[in-house]
Amino acid sequence: MSSATRGPDGVVIRDAVSQDWDGIYPFYAAIMAEGRTFPFPERQSLEEARPWWMEQPPGKTVVAVDDDGVIVGSAKMGPNRPGRGSHVATASFIVDPAHQGKGIGRALGEYVIDWCLSRRFRGIQFNAVVESNRAAVQLYRSLGFEVIGTVPEAFDHPDEGLVGLHVMYLRLNPAAGSYV
Amino acid sequence: MSSATRGPDGVVIRDAVSQDWDGIYPFYAAIMAEGRTFPFPERQSLEEARPWWMEQPPGKTVVAVDDDGVIVGSAKMGPNRPGRGSHVATASFIVDPAHQGKGIGRALGEYVIDWCLSRRFRGIQFNAVVESNRAAVQLYRSLGFEVIGTVPEAFDHPDEGLVGLHVMYLRLNPAAGSYV
Repeated sequence: MSSATRGPDGVVIRDAVSQDWDGIYPFYAAIMAEGRTFPFPERQSLEEARPWWMEQPPGKTVVAVDDDGVIVGSAKMGPNRPGRGSHVATASFIVDPAHQGKGIGRALGEYVIDWCLSRRFRGIQFNAVVESNRAAVQLYRSLGFEVIGTVPEAFDHPDEGLVGLHVMYLRLNPAAGSYV
Repeated sequence: MSSATRGPDGVVIRDAVSQDWDGIYPFYAAIMAEGRTFPFPERQSLEEARPWWMEQPPGKTVVAVDDDGVIVGSAKMGPNRPGRGSHVATASFIVDPAHQGKGIGRALGEYVIDWCLSRRFRGIQFNAVVESNRAAVQLYRSLGFEVIGTVPEAFDHPDEGLVGLHVMYLRLNPAAGSYV
């Protein structure tokens, strides 16, 4: 697949380069500070947070960039585990809150599925989807992911208290070039 | 709880110190080379493998030591996730194949549960238990863990091909000092 993919409303998805982190970090930090969607550290500096989002090979990070060159979303992807688990991928997604609801998350999700197929992963596992994050759960379901199980009370939500973390999974069929 | 706990047959469980890694690594490497039980890298040198097993605070690693001062098993434990997921613990266990079947794994499991209760974790999650590793699955079930879900075909077993990885969970009740 090409390294730049057309998203909604002229949004382009392309591989992130090191300098892109300065454009991702503000909304990454805002999303983590909100504390509603990721079991990630919350008060990381620019440099502390960088390795949490900017993936190294064989994984990678991409950015969704709008018409004005502004980074409006990002995804990271790669093997979920090393060794004998490395044929299953994982991924994470963030969309700038100012640009949510425009289909950018869906475009990033579709990009990740295509990339995982091209790298011949056998499936994609999300390890910790906050069950109260209904927009994310619904998006992933609509992309074909199913909930494998839910770890009860595993996420301390600022409003809802202890909520579950879903393990979600999409089986891929690289031989057919599609998911099944 | 004390930092040294009595196990079976005079085996003592104590906090690992840095030099213990030389005694853990030989059976760690043998177990990973066998490729039947852990989705870990397989051909790590002594130094490459060290950070994969020797935990840093707030987690820790312990060793099970026999009457002769020989390290016969080890466990590592700590928060499964940072931030708003840090109230759930995780742990991993290895027992020297020459000393398996003596109750050392069970003693390490009980140690980890006690430690997690003392640190007021709300539960313990195992992220990737190879479903064909029946001894481990049976031990964890007997300790109270249940299978939350199974990621299909997520582990490439040398004999059995693609087998599932269980997510297992034990709820803890730190207020009562017991598990429920």
